[in-house]
Amino acid sequence: MHNPDITSEIPTGAGPSTAPDATASEVSAGEVLAPYLHARAADFLRGLRLHTESGADTRGAEEAARTLRAAARRISGTLHTFRPLLDGAWADQLRTELAWLSGTLALEHACTSRLVRLVDALSRLSSDGGPHGGGPVPAARGAESSRGLAVGAARAGALLERQLTLARTRAHSAALQALGSSRFHAVADAVALLASEVPLGPAGSARAAEVLDAPALVVEHRLLDAVGALPLSRAAHPYNAEALALAAAEAQDTPWHQTRSLLRLHRYAGEVLRGGAEPDPVLYEAGRALDRHRDAAEAAAAAATAARTPRIAPATAYALGVLHADQRHEVEAARFAFQRAWSRAAVAVP
Amino acid sequence: MHNPDITSEIPTGAGPSTAPDATASEVSAGEVLAPYLHARAADFLRGLRLHTESGADTRGAEEAARTLRAAARRISGTLHTFRPLLDGAWADQLRTELAWLSGTLALEHACTSRLVRLVDALSRLSSDGGPHGGGPVPAARGAESSRGLAVGAARAGALLERQLTLARTRAHSAALQALGSSRFHAVADAVALLASEVPLGPAGSARAAEVLDAPALVVEHRLLDAVGALPLSRAAHPYNAEALALAAAEAQDTPWHQTRSLLRLHRYAGEVLRGGAEPDPVLYEAGRALDRHRDAAEAAAAAATAARTPRIAPATAYALGVLHADQRHEVEAARFAFQRAWSRAAVAVP
Repeated sequence: MHNPDITSEIPTGAGPSTAPDATASEVSAGEVLAPYLHARAADFLRGLRLHTESGADTRGAEEAARTLRAAARRISGTLHTFRPLLDGAWADQLRTELAWLSGTLALEHACTSRLVRLVDALSRLSSDGGPHGGGPVPAARGAESSRGLAVGAARAGALLERQLTLARTRAHSAALQALGSSRFHAVADAVALLASEVPLGPAGSARAAEVLDAPALVVEHRLLDAVGALPLSRAAHPYNAEALALAAAEAQDTPWHQTRSLLRLHRYAGEVLRGGAEPDPVLYEAGRALDRHRDAAEAAAAAATAARTPRIAPATAYALGVLHADQRHEVEAARFAFQRAWSRAAVAVP
Repeated sequence: MHNPDITSEIPTGAGPSTAPDATASEVSAGEVLAPYLHARAADFLRGLRLHTESGADTRGAEEAARTLRAAARRISGTLHTFRPLLDGAWADQLRTELAWLSGTLALEHACTSRLVRLVDALSRLSSDGGPHGGGPVPAARGAESSRGLAVGAARAGALLERQLTLARTRAHSAALQALGSSRFHAVADAVALLASEVPLGPAGSARAAEVLDAPALVVEHRLLDAVGALPLSRAAHPYNAEALALAAAEAQDTPWHQTRSLLRLHRYAGEVLRGGAEPDPVLYEAGRALDRHRDAAEAAAAAATAARTPRIAPATAYALGVLHADQRHEVEAARFAFQRAWSRAAVAVP
């Protein structure tokens, strides 16, 4: 499945840029890395200020958490990809702390969006199909079946709401606790320093044109290898039912999740090299498909977990089974969408 | 969605034919209809002989029932489509009896194939995904989930086997009883007469070129109208999740089932006009997609019915819910396949 042609397409080269031109002979690697890291550190500090100001404003707090997470991911990704040009020990230490922080902050958001996804799916599954479905007089068997499903869906929805709201509340407390911890203050101090100074390694003062591409290419090749190992020819056939082999779901999903992380790293590397410009729209779409893949896979797992709650009614378990399969169907749809976006990226090569 | 262009494509005209040439000016309508009905009546009598000879041979009995059903459907379809050229009262009476017979004979086969479909789906759902899925070391959550699913799937499979085997046994007894009844002997006598003589109406002696196309075109236009009313533009988008609006399933499916019947009538009319030649491969494929649509819809309904069995374990209900959604996913896949085949038929127009 490895398509070497795509190598030349993935945009890591310089595009319309506001950063120092990485190909200009006199610019050092540090002079390219520093403005990007300064800007992301500033974003992080802005997120922190938003958080402090948000108080009881839920929407403000969400916005603050989103800003903090996005900045933490980008700093962490940059430290990872361009580690050979940085002070390695410092980079590793800060990455560990940022991973802890963004992981903690991501959990609450994940619980919220998972609940929304599952409740939406339940309502779609037990709806009459909207403008396309449903005649005025459903047959008796259909009506009986749909009443049973409606009861089960309502109970399943209540169960999921209970479980995911509890998880979200816990995640919220954990996030608040993290943001008040001395560990967090140490991270915030390190990021505040990063807003003005980037600890470079010896290679950081080398010419950007000579040393900046290699680390980005390492990420790109890892991404291409990961995509090459995905079962894309199967994913290209709609309704292949692969993702519905439920017992294999977790093992099946892992390479897709890894591809998602690598696509992100690649995107951030591109931001560094192109000075934060917008990503290639096709790769952006591919990334969105992998986000949806991850969300659907986790929602399916949440439905399966809920079904293992002791003493639930068979109707509840039934609706959760329907929901589980439905979300695995979404997983398959996301793989199809990724394959489509990726193949468009491949044919876009001149 | 109605595509008038397709009218010119659907093959009702004369093709390579062993029957009297319907366009030859001197051939009467009866001279085209009679050989077709004689041949189908002979098929029916052969099926009957196979049945008598099969005794305890299950495979032979299945083959006999298949032959009887296929012949009964074709005779019945021809009597329906070309009724204006036949003795109307006789045609109506024989059609009613053939419908009773083929309905009775179809039930046993339907139970068998439904059980096979559902057991296959359960085994696919709880498998490790075959050569594509599954690493050697599944994660703990996946393993726990798959154990639970395996237990539920095994129980659900046993429940479905019990219910569908019982239904099949009943259908088998009903079929045997029907084949031994005086009602059946009357049908067999009527078909035996048909093997040598076709009761025509006054229009039956008119020139074939003048009267044979009109009844076939009526069926064709009904088919085109039915297809035109299907939500094909939605079906063309893979993973549209329409068929997963479970509460609307029955009402949604009806127009597809009706299209399936009309496509069959149209196919039989083509056989009459072209002397039993092979159908257009694209229309054949479209028909197969609609067969699959019907089978998956009925299998989904059987899973839903099984889930309403009192006192089943939640794990069983869960697996049945997964199975229900899986089969509705198959329904959606069949609609997609139909849309693809049909759009190929449309572009095949010169």
